[in-house]
Amino acid sequence: MNTLVPEALTAAAFAPFGEVIAADAAAQCLSINAGNTARYHDLARLDAGPDGRLIVSIFRGQPRTLPFVVSMMERHPLGSQAFMPLGQQPYLVVVARPGPAPGADDLRAFLAQPGQGVNYAPGVWHHPLLALNAIGDFLVIDRSGPGDNCDEVGIDPAVRLSLD
Amino acid sequence: MNTLVPEALTAAAFAPFGEVIAADAAAQCLSINAGNTARYHDLARLDAGPDGRLIVSIFRGQPRTLPFVVSMMERHPLGSQAFMPLGQQPYLVVVARPGPAPGADDLRAFLAQPGQGVNYAPGVWHHPLLALNAIGDFLVIDRSGPGDNCDEVGIDPAVRLSLD
Repeated sequence: MNTLVPEALTAAAFAPFGEVIAADAAAQCLSINAGNTARYHDLARLDAGPDGRLIVSIFRGQPRTLPFVVSMMERHPLGSQAFMPLGQQPYLVVVARPGPAPGADDLRAFLAQPGQGVNYAPGVWHHPLLALNAIGDFLVIDRSGPGDNCDEVGIDPAVRLSLD
Repeated sequence: MNTLVPEALTAAAFAPFGEVIAADAAAQCLSINAGNTARYHDLARLDAGPDGRLIVSIFRGQPRTLPFVVSMMERHPLGSQAFMPLGQQPYLVVVARPGPAPGADDLRAFLAQPGQGVNYAPGVWHHPLLALNAIGDFLVIDRSGPGDNCDEVGIDPAVRLSLD
């Protein structure tokens, strides 16, 4: 079984899949509230499609054990899905470009740090939530609306995900 | 100067102003990701109005010193504004019902705990971000679009906000 080792999560590396949501130097930053507050502005392309609406939820994920076997991926063709960690633990992101069902060689993995969220563009293949070390809460902004907005696909052969 | 002491933030007490965003027993909770994840579903009425769109930003607020003098409030008539704390500190929320400019007696204050976000309904008067104890990062979901979406009003006489 092939092993996939995650890369650091950067805006540039993640660009084919969506946006990194973070208060970092690359973001547009406005001073508001009489100088009390810095606003890192409009950090992701939220997209609910023509007939959907954006909703906000909290996902509470049990931590995964490493090495983790990636044997499936999913996508939401009709809308984006953003995850922002509310805790102080890193987590893993496994993605593949939109298009035909991915194979083992198409997967990319990223190690996201606390303070870094991700927004998957519509149709981007991704693995369900991969919290590490502790139960992890994430604020999620995604689509509600008509139609089937979740496709799943098996990954065969499966891939071993490990930090080293 | 009158003193305003914050109440505990609960969904019921905050209902005239919007929603509390939290993974708590009152929320609809779905088991997803083959049982790995609990989804606390659709926790706030996000509203960008007919000609706006929802955007996601990060607000980084300097901590306020208590007692704090509330001498102004603001509102966003054209859209909702949600704040979710990304850190582990409490923060303060000061609000007044939609309608005419509030006076000192119209203000309500809430002490929000880590893990509790708030969504201000359109037109709800509120004080700008009141982080406590440390620099506080908040994920913010609000409206971008045409028109003037921020009204400010002075509070005279001002009100002293204190935890006791």
